[in-house]
Amino acid sequence: MPTKGKLKSPERFIRPMVRKLDGYVPGEQPQSKNIIKLNTNENPISPSPKVLRAIQKAADSRLRLYPNPTAKPLRSALAQLHCCQPENIIIGNGSDELLALATRCFVEPKSSGTKTSKEIARQTIQYFTPSYSLYPILADIHGARKNEFKLSQNYKLPNKTSLIKGKWNYQAALTYITTPNAPSGAGYKTKDLAKICKDQNGIIILDEAYIDFAEETALGLTKRFSNVIISRTFSKSYSLCSQRIGYFIAHSKLIAALDRIRDSYNTNELGQTAALATLTDLKYYQRQFKRIIKARSQTSKNLTAIGFDVIPSQTNFIFAKPKGLSAKDLFIKLRKQKIITRWFDTKDCRDWLRITIGTERDMEKFILSTKSIVKKHSQR
Amino acid sequence: MPTKGKLKSPERFIRPMVRKLDGYVPGEQPQSKNIIKLNTNENPISPSPKVLRAIQKAADSRLRLYPNPTAKPLRSALAQLHCCQPENIIIGNGSDELLALATRCFVEPKSSGTKTSKEIARQTIQYFTPSYSLYPILADIHGARKNEFKLSQNYKLPNKTSLIKGKWNYQAALTYITTPNAPSGAGYKTKDLAKICKDQNGIIILDEAYIDFAEETALGLTKRFSNVIISRTFSKSYSLCSQRIGYFIAHSKLIAALDRIRDSYNTNELGQTAALATLTDLKYYQRQFKRIIKARSQTSKNLTAIGFDVIPSQTNFIFAKPKGLSAKDLFIKLRKQKIITRWFDTKDCRDWLRITIGTERDMEKFILSTKSIVKKHSQR
Repeated sequence: MPTKGKLKSPERFIRPMVRKLDGYVPGEQPQSKNIIKLNTNENPISPSPKVLRAIQKAADSRLRLYPNPTAKPLRSALAQLHCCQPENIIIGNGSDELLALATRCFVEPKSSGTKTSKEIARQTIQYFTPSYSLYPILADIHGARKNEFKLSQNYKLPNKTSLIKGKWNYQAALTYITTPNAPSGAGYKTKDLAKICKDQNGIIILDEAYIDFAEETALGLTKRFSNVIISRTFSKSYSLCSQRIGYFIAHSKLIAALDRIRDSYNTNELGQTAALATLTDLKYYQRQFKRIIKARSQTSKNLTAIGFDVIPSQTNFIFAKPKGLSAKDLFIKLRKQKIITRWFDTKDCRDWLRITIGTERDMEKFILSTKSIVKKHSQR
Repeated sequence: MPTKGKLKSPERFIRPMVRKLDGYVPGEQPQSKNIIKLNTNENPISPSPKVLRAIQKAADSRLRLYPNPTAKPLRSALAQLHCCQPENIIIGNGSDELLALATRCFVEPKSSGTKTSKEIARQTIQYFTPSYSLYPILADIHGARKNEFKLSQNYKLPNKTSLIKGKWNYQAALTYITTPNAPSGAGYKTKDLAKICKDQNGIIILDEAYIDFAEETALGLTKRFSNVIISRTFSKSYSLCSQRIGYFIAHSKLIAALDRIRDSYNTNELGQTAALATLTDLKYYQRQFKRIIKARSQTSKNLTAIGFDVIPSQTNFIFAKPKGLSAKDLFIKLRKQKIITRWFDTKDCRDWLRITIGTERDMEKFILSTKSIVKKHSQR
């Protein structure tokens, strides 16, 4: 196998654009046990027993066969759930695959001959910061222009005046909006999102990864605006991160275009099986959502009580600014106690800690540890 | 949900390049039973019982967690198998994902300002025809130039004189070679492949999807040439089409570049589990390879005996030109008897039928049906 220096470096065969890329850094997936993992917004509760049984039952000689290439049964079941047609749905290898696919479907890569503002807009991907840190990486991978709009410190959705003042591009080819937002956890009102969708002369993806923990969905906007795509995932609310199933809901012409450029067998069969079984047991999950929302509310209260600044959350995580010590210090000290949270070392986020809501027991331990760390720190 | 005519068509938001695409048409995946499915080169034999047990055991509450983002345990096991380092391996959501990723990593999209032959070469994807019908589609999706080299009717690997005469581009950014080839089934000698790899000033992907049914692998070429990538899959020989696990082996710098542009959680956890378990039971699979090769040999003999032209196969399928009726007619008549083969309606291939090797019983039925169809036809 080629080892350093042994062979002429093949660097020259790699596109100059790719050589410069950094790549997305996913949250840690520690292998050791006894860790309280509050860092990647996974659901702390197991998938429904029905889902586990469905997978076990399907794990037989049929694994030798290709999966259903269009995930037709799953699309039909989702269409029924969302009162639309299967043609309005595309299934992805996690919603991440679809978010990436959208760049290649709707955005022209930068090109040296670009001159007009219209051409520039066709090459532009736009999003709020902070929001899902994957967006700028997808733009870079595709060689697109980026238009970042910095949210104010209350993390609310900006109004039209603010958007125009902050150089929002109403002509941008593709706009990503995480709603409710991550990492802030803040919810956006559908009527406010509608205003942006109406004025935007380009695709808007409303990334509803955390919608089951929120007050309202913007799904109805796909009925009003043909430029709106709703992104959903089975990862978070349905405890299926491992299985990689996400989906888009949109106008059938947008779905057909995305379909033409996806890998033909992009989703695995056991993932399709698990997602289908999930839809037969939604009551199980609705009970879990209530538990998580309750634990979120309790944790927010407890952190507020010790002086932390907590953004009201409509997700399965909370975004909190510690009092008495820096977010980084708290992150490191919690880690020593085997409690892993997420700290983003960026200008926007480094004062804050993102804490996934775990089980009630996880959150009790988290609060106890946090209180004791803050107390020790204040005694120094 | 948007329905035709109800909303303004969002066609204008789709890239002009994407509007023109056709998309890959995967082989049929019929849902009804009692069908002999010889159309998509799936292995007729179940994965090892060890693999099924490993999946069943892993289907528990851990499904809520994200998969290992770098598939480290699987890459380590494969590195041991292939005598290389984990840094020489990238795992894909099937090898199809990696074949697509390679276009974005190594090939510039076409651009209006292109002038020099060097610039043209950096935008060129090259492959033989007929070979895997996905390659031109990947080139179109990426907006790359295509350089197709038509194989002669014996489907052998062309020598340098023929390549130059047929306008092979030795500067092409990316060359795909399916080895052994599909749909012909013909094997290529490593020493002949080495000559092309040596002279090629660009990446060559040797797509060894069917290698376990062949006489030799070209894996060693990755040690000699830093521009060579070997592509493998668990789909065919390891009966895991459903689970979407493929991989590339190459110089660590090429792997690192591909890694920077892949989705961070691109392979599902149960797929990783299944592939790892597969590697602990290779003896089981080696017995199956022998069975399939024996059935292939028997089927080839039987078809030759009734006058069919059969390309010597080093894969788990055979490519045969019927005698007495057209390939299309035979395809349709077999289908009526619930035997599904693959017929490609292209200039290169429409005289031929591609027949996946099924179980011994499948092949007996296939031969009986074929003989009876040919006989009936000659009596007309």
